Amino acid sequence: MQALIETRAAHRVHGGQLTYAQHQSAATGTAMRFSAFIPPGEGPFPYLIWLSGLTCTEDNFTTKAGAYGAAAKHGVAIIAPDTSPRGEGVADDPAYDLGQGAGFYINATQTPWTPHFQMERYITVDLIHTVEHAFPLKARASIFGHSMGGHGALTLAMKYPERFVSVSAFAPIASPTRCPWGEKAFTAYLGEDRTSWRAHDAALLMQAGRANALGEILVDQGLGDQFLEGQLKPELLEAAAKASGAKLNLRRHEGYDHSYFFMASFIEEHIAFHAARLSA
Amino acid sequence: MQALIETRAAHRVHGGQLTYAQHQSAATGTAMRFSAFIPPGEGPFPYLIWLSGLTCTEDNFTTKAGAYGAAAKHGVAIIAPDTSPRGEGVADDPAYDLGQGAGFYINATQTPWTPHFQMERYITVDLIHTVEHAFPLKARASIFGHSMGGHGALTLAMKYPERFVSVSAFAPIASPTRCPWGEKAFTAYLGEDRTSWRAHDAALLMQAGRANALGEILVDQGLGDQFLEGQLKPELLEAAAKASGAKLNLRRHEGYDHSYFFMASFIEEHIAFHAARLSA
Repeated sequence: MQALIETRAAHRVHGGQLTYAQHQSAATGTAMRFSAFIPPGEGPFPYLIWLSGLTCTEDNFTTKAGAYGAAAKHGVAIIAPDTSPRGEGVADDPAYDLGQGAGFYINATQTPWTPHFQMERYITVDLIHTVEHAFPLKARASIFGHSMGGHGALTLAMKYPERFVSVSAFAPIASPTRCPWGEKAFTAYLGEDRTSWRAHDAALLMQAGRANALGEILVDQGLGDQFLEGQLKPELLEAAAKASGAKLNLRRHEGYDHSYFFMASFIEEHIAFHAARLSA
Repeated sequence: MQALIETRAAHRVHGGQLTYAQHQSAATGTAMRFSAFIPPGEGPFPYLIWLSGLTCTEDNFTTKAGAYGAAAKHGVAIIAPDTSPRGEGVADDPAYDLGQGAGFYINATQTPWTPHFQMERYITVDLIHTVEHAFPLKARASIFGHSMGGHGALTLAMKYPERFVSVSAFAPIASPTRCPWGEKAFTAYLGEDRTSWRAHDAALLMQAGRANALGEILVDQGLGDQFLEGQLKPELLEAAAKASGAKLNLRRHEGYDHSYFFMASFIEEHIAFHAARLSA
C-alpha cells in the first residue's frame, strides 16, 4: 500500500509519526503534497482533514498550529494537504489570491484552470482514497480549516455529508459569492455566471438547510482579524444558521488576528470537538 | 519605558500578548530583534529566555515550538532573541555555522567579529535590562535553548548563577571544544589558543563543579538526531555530571530528531520544570 505515496520527510512528534508525502492525483493530474500525523498506538484511527488558507502549503499548519499534542491525546490522525496543484505546466497568476496556493477547494470549469484546478475532487476522492490505504486510518473523517480552508471545510462538509462526521473552521470565508476574494476566484475558476457559484458558498448552502444534518458546527473568529469585515463576514453565516436552524456555534474572540497564533490558541478545542464526534 | 523597544508586530495568543520587537544593543552595536510572550493577567511575571540554534532567528521558536499554551497556564513570560547581530557592516561567513545566525552566545575577541559578536554580554546585560523595563516582568528568569542555544543556556546559567534560577536544554552542544561546530566557531571568535575556549564549554564547566549550585538540570535528547554522535555528544555532559555531582537529568528519546517537532513534543514539560522553580 505504501507505494501509493512517496515519503519526502518523516519526524517523530508527540509520540506519533509525522510524514511529509506526495502522491499522484488523477483529479489534478499532478503530484500533490500533504502531511500526515498518525498518533501513537495501534490504530486504525479516525482522522481529520485540515484545509489551509491562501498562500499556504502543506507545511504551515504542520509547523505552526501546535495541533499534534491534542491529536496524540485523543488518538486522532490529521491530514494537511497543499492548497492547490503546483509546478511547471500548471496555470498560475501573479496575485496571491488566485492560481497556485489559492485553489479554493472547487473544481474549475474555465480555462486555463480546468485541467489541474480540481481541488474539490482531489480532497473528496483522491486524498481520502490515498491516505485511507497508505496509513492505518478508519474510513471515518471530519474536516476543518482556516480562511479559504474554512470555506473549503464548511462547503465540502455540506456537499459530502456521507464523507465527513463533523466540521469546524477558523475565520472562514463565510460567503465567497459576496466578498472580493471569492468573487475574483469564482469568476476565474467558474466563470461569469453567478448561478454556478451558489453551490460553493457556505452561507448559501447553510441557508438552504444543507448543514442541518451535520450537528453542531464550531466556528472561531478573531475580532482583531484584518479581513473580518471586508472578506470573512461571519454574520452571513450566522444569519443563514438562524434562517435554517443549523446548529452554528460561532465564537468571537476579542483581540485575535488572522494568524496561526490565533489558531494555535484554540486548536486543542477543535480537536476535542471532532474527537468526541468521531468516537461517538 | 516602552521607548526602549520598537514593536514590529503584535499578536494575541493563548490569552496573552506576543510582541516582535527590536532594540538598540550597546553590546553588539546593532539593532537586535526578539519576541516576547507575556501571559494573561496582571504581572509582574517571572520569565524564560529561549536561545535558538544555528541559522535561527527570533521567529523559529516563536512560530514552531508550541510553547505559549503552557506558558499562559503557568503564568510565565518567554523572551526569544535572535541568534546573532545582523545587517550591513556586520561580519559574516558564507557557511551556515559561522557569523550571522551563529553567534554561539559568547563574546568574540578576534577580528572581524569583535565589534558586533558580543552575544554573551547582549543576552546577560542588554536583553535582560531591556525586557525587564519594557514588559511587566520580575527580575527573576530561567534559561533554556536548543543545540547551539542549548550550549548557550547551559554555559550562561553556569557563568551567571545570580541571573538564572534554572536551566534546561534540548539537544545541546554539550562540549563545543570537542566537536566540529564548536571548534570552528571558537577558533574564529576566540582564536587558536584553546585555553580561552574552556570557559565556554558546558561539559567542562560542569566538570569543574559550576553546575552544582544550580539544582536539577533537565536535558532532552532525541536518539534519531542526525547530529547526536558527531556534534552534540551528551555523554560528555553525563560524564561531567557524574564526576562533579551535578544533578543532570538527561533523558534520551527513541526516534526523535533535531527538529522543532522534537522540541514541541516536550516543551510543556520544560516550561513546567522552570515554572515550578521560578515560583519557588
